[in-house]
Amino acid sequence: MATIIDGRALAKKINAQTHKRVAKLNQQGIHPGIAVVIAGDDSASLIYTRNKHKKAMKLGINSILRKFPRDISQNELLAEIDNLNKDDSIDAILVQQPLPPQIDQKTITNAILPEKDVDGLNPLNLGKLFANQNTNHPIACTPRGIMRMLKEYEVQLKGQNAVIVGRSILVGKPLLALLNNADATVTMAGRNTRDLTKLTQTADILIVAAGVPHLIGAADVKAGATVIDVGINRLSTGKLTGDVDFDSVKEKAGLITPVPGGVGPMTIATLMEQTVDLAQWRHHG
Amino acid sequence: MATIIDGRALAKKINAQTHKRVAKLNQQGIHPGIAVVIAGDDSASLIYTRNKHKKAMKLGINSILRKFPRDISQNELLAEIDNLNKDDSIDAILVQQPLPPQIDQKTITNAILPEKDVDGLNPLNLGKLFANQNTNHPIACTPRGIMRMLKEYEVQLKGQNAVIVGRSILVGKPLLALLNNADATVTMAGRNTRDLTKLTQTADILIVAAGVPHLIGAADVKAGATVIDVGINRLSTGKLTGDVDFDSVKEKAGLITPVPGGVGPMTIATLMEQTVDLAQWRHHG
Repeated sequence: MATIIDGRALAKKINAQTHKRVAKLNQQGIHPGIAVVIAGDDSASLIYTRNKHKKAMKLGINSILRKFPRDISQNELLAEIDNLNKDDSIDAILVQQPLPPQIDQKTITNAILPEKDVDGLNPLNLGKLFANQNTNHPIACTPRGIMRMLKEYEVQLKGQNAVIVGRSILVGKPLLALLNNADATVTMAGRNTRDLTKLTQTADILIVAAGVPHLIGAADVKAGATVIDVGINRLSTGKLTGDVDFDSVKEKAGLITPVPGGVGPMTIATLMEQTVDLAQWRHHG
Repeated sequence: MATIIDGRALAKKINAQTHKRVAKLNQQGIHPGIAVVIAGDDSASLIYTRNKHKKAMKLGINSILRKFPRDISQNELLAEIDNLNKDDSIDAILVQQPLPPQIDQKTITNAILPEKDVDGLNPLNLGKLFANQNTNHPIACTPRGIMRMLKEYEVQLKGQNAVIVGRSILVGKPLLALLNNADATVTMAGRNTRDLTKLTQTADILIVAAGVPHLIGAADVKAGATVIDVGINRLSTGKLTGDVDFDSVKEKAGLITPVPGGVGPMTIATLMEQTVDLAQWRHHG
């Protein structure tokens, strides 16, 4: 029976630290600020952005929400990002995905000032992470939050086999870089991977971000492994579930994150923490 | 018995194309130029840079060699790179490694204009590669040359297991990104990897860039695998040898590169090709 990683408790701890850091920065006349940009009315995105907004306010971080109609042109959106790039009260810019089809995600990502790129998606920030340049640069919040969880639960990384299922730029790729930088032996698997079970069975650390409910069952997991479930899938019953069959896998794994209450709360806590980092780096270098 | 990949023949073919492209650009008044920067008098580095210089001249590429004493300060070297960044006759800047200890490799790498970064080491270029942004950007020459070899010999990548031994920023990391972008399932191993043999035995494509003579023997290789040897080690007898025990592995592999005559010639040919690419991108976008 695995130890269940309590993402909510750890997020609470990080939020308390962030709250204190904000108060300290305020005394120095620094007021961390985040701008969340949303285009269109995807209901899940609206919920996410509202939650981020509320959390920021609660921690004393200035938060502005810029909501645009789903038919906004790419040039209009670029002009808005340019304004936020130049706005001295804004330390962090987050553009909520998915964007409407007329907008090229890559063009938007590349337009965000690297120093304000709280999602860590600008290629300059991604390249610094991949190159393992030990400088101050933002890192995608979900992967950074996962690394924080692994640290909290004292999971050894060096020399361990890590398998990441899912190759997205928001989760899989930054995690690959982070685990590689931590001297794990990392494999990244995707939909083209042959014999996924054989591969995941080799993982001391298994991270699943495929967006497929219950993709990973007990037979796919090595006994004693650390299993991190990034999936958030809503079943037709309305119930939230992960990419891992929690009930069976928890009997075999050594450590496991639940869904909800695992990776999710850590992502928002890390977003807040990183917003404060960006403010600090911008003002203090 | 494996098919032996003929790196020299393919390099010759690429060089012939590069030569023609240079002639065509010359007719448009464009004269591709590369600057090779070397600090100190490491004898292997001097040989490499001289070979690059000679090859460039032979293909009609303008080549300048900037040789500095090994006690050059970082600021002096940065000033020289700045000059080359601004020099309109220079399309490609290559700083030969290793640099003397008073110079921070990362600082130098980050100072090269991304548009002239023929080694593809600037984090912006590395990030674009990792993010799989399908734009024009330079890629480290050895990995790009290896991908060209795999293409020439029609090696399937999608869904295949690729294992890279060696995690350097010049070889291992860009290859990881390239093979991942080609939909292979990629594992990157290093000196901390547990049970390397078990891992390499799973590889349909095995790329070895560890700098350890004969690290990989026949028992480490899956029958029929494609084996790419990036190692160039000089034995005490003076003989050059790779990281792969060629004589035994060639009996088991499907495809294999020899050392010398495999990856080496491809790297220089790719450097020349990419210098012309950079000239073309800079003038024609």
